[in-house]
Amino acid sequence: MPSNILHMIKNDLLLRALKGEVVERPPVWMMRQAGRYLPEFIEIRKKYDFFTRCQTPELASEITVQPIRRYGMDAAILFSDILVIPQAMNIEVLMKPDFGPFIPNPIRNAKDLEKVVVPDVNESLDYVFDAIKMTKEILNNDIPLIGFAGSPWTILCYIVQGQGSKTFDKAKEFCFKNPILAHELLSKITVTTIAYLKQKVNAGVDVLQIFDSWGGLLSPTDYSEFSWQYINQIIEELKDFAPVVVFGKGCWFALNEMSKSNASALGVDWTITARNARYLSGGNITLQGNLDPSRLLSSKSKIKDLVNNMINDFGKDRYIVNLGHGILPNIPLENVEVFINTVKEYKA
Amino acid sequence: MPSNILHMIKNDLLLRALKGEVVERPPVWMMRQAGRYLPEFIEIRKKYDFFTRCQTPELASEITVQPIRRYGMDAAILFSDILVIPQAMNIEVLMKPDFGPFIPNPIRNAKDLEKVVVPDVNESLDYVFDAIKMTKEILNNDIPLIGFAGSPWTILCYIVQGQGSKTFDKAKEFCFKNPILAHELLSKITVTTIAYLKQKVNAGVDVLQIFDSWGGLLSPTDYSEFSWQYINQIIEELKDFAPVVVFGKGCWFALNEMSKSNASALGVDWTITARNARYLSGGNITLQGNLDPSRLLSSKSKIKDLVNNMINDFGKDRYIVNLGHGILPNIPLENVEVFINTVKEYKA
Repeated sequence: MPSNILHMIKNDLLLRALKGEVVERPPVWMMRQAGRYLPEFIEIRKKYDFFTRCQTPELASEITVQPIRRYGMDAAILFSDILVIPQAMNIEVLMKPDFGPFIPNPIRNAKDLEKVVVPDVNESLDYVFDAIKMTKEILNNDIPLIGFAGSPWTILCYIVQGQGSKTFDKAKEFCFKNPILAHELLSKITVTTIAYLKQKVNAGVDVLQIFDSWGGLLSPTDYSEFSWQYINQIIEELKDFAPVVVFGKGCWFALNEMSKSNASALGVDWTITARNARYLSGGNITLQGNLDPSRLLSSKSKIKDLVNNMINDFGKDRYIVNLGHGILPNIPLENVEVFINTVKEYKA
Repeated sequence: MPSNILHMIKNDLLLRALKGEVVERPPVWMMRQAGRYLPEFIEIRKKYDFFTRCQTPELASEITVQPIRRYGMDAAILFSDILVIPQAMNIEVLMKPDFGPFIPNPIRNAKDLEKVVVPDVNESLDYVFDAIKMTKEILNNDIPLIGFAGSPWTILCYIVQGQGSKTFDKAKEFCFKNPILAHELLSKITVTTIAYLKQKVNAGVDVLQIFDSWGGLLSPTDYSEFSWQYINQIIEELKDFAPVVVFGKGCWFALNEMSKSNASALGVDWTITARNARYLSGGNITLQGNLDPSRLLSSKSKIKDLVNNMINDFGKDRYIVNLGHGILPNIPLENVEVFINTVKEYKA
């Protein structure tokens, strides 16, 4: 039996919001809260490279709890990367400083695809499960721990393109010229991701989030075909083990379809109003978001107003306060504090 | 009196679609149709650098008509760049090969802003007006000529950021930290753009398009404040001189507000269905778009199906067939031909 049975978590605001229960105030956490804007993280980054930080449970768990110590968010999210999945699938992934992910041998044809394996996640990703166990011990069931994965489409984007991109034109070219190969690759990623997330829950995570960072590059029809159907497979396989949150950046057009799934919550970016997000998602599912991360560069009083208005607009229930995408590296620490504390002090 | 009075244009499909008239088939053109995917353009690019091509009327007009000769679109769009405006405003803009626009001294504070001038467009942008006159002569009133400008927000993005960007985080930082300075800069760009577009109409363009390439990076509230109000000023000043098309990439959330303006048409990208675009824009305004440019990498039969479905979905009237963004450099010539010809052969 996993150690994370619900009643053991002392601050269960997030879990209750995911179940749609009435709460005294919405829970708050921030995408990428463990990382680049924190001086204590930057200290660690000076000493260890990216994948060393991911692969060393002591480092990953320390980084995970750093923002909690400083700000007391209502959830921790395990420090890791979506690209540990393709690494485990026999695809070399490098993280180049000031450049981002780099895949020396991107997947472009049937021969490349043959080399892609569906791994035994217990073997190749054991360091993630160790980091989860270690983090759960440190957190001492004070707050829930979120584990995440990239959507199969978003992972395909990187491993076909070979690096980050504004348009992921090579990834789309691969899908539109070779749809059969693309679906084979997406299926392999999906099977791996399901096994990976199941083991994450076994190791102790309380909530799962799927990041579809590049779903918004697709038309609604192509999104259903190349992204959503695989995310939905993951939800169906995981829904009985942990609540699943789906964040599709730029995927407002799919909110209606998503809201009919067994996801427990949907993340939205800042280009949609709370009213439209509620309308498109049918009004019942828990929503998460959506302050423009750049808005944390505003004055403190402006941030306070924006956060209070956001909670009023989404409503305090069935709502998780977050940014509309990951926090930026150049956000002043005291502005993060204003963001978190405004939520904690919220009175309906 | 300008030479472009409506009845003189032989193929007036675009002008009729912009007026909402019933047409036998929708007009078709492609954003960035004059450029990088055409071998005859690549020949010219080998000999002349970017701004020489923009600033030499003989070259700009030749490049403008190249795609018309090859494919016979229903409109030409003057070869130019949105960054000729900041150049005329005393901001140095370079176009670095394989990098894109580069602004050595980006605008970041009040002192930088002081150096930004509102120029006499007749003096600093005379080469654009000469290129229009020359192009109109070559086109011989066979089809209309479109002139364009960037939205003030999109131009601000480049001149504050200093280069292209996924997030334009420095541009947003500038606006959110110094809203008063940002509005001063946006006003200067707006005044210049209005004078520029009026002169373009005087020189002979039949239709105007405003490109808001980066409007989709803003929240709906910030969009109204930092982008839409300035676009709307431009529409109000130009509407009596030429029909104005507004293309806001990623700006689906603003379609309703836009549709209440005096714009003659709204461009939409490929992340919105025709049904949603019609719904959000109120059902009466002419829409333009929206095939995913990457979809021109599909098989010819697939392209044909996508185009026919697109026309059926938008409806043949109050509709201009286009891509959802600029054509990509790697599109096969014969696929462009299929795209254009499918529209020309469309039977309701």
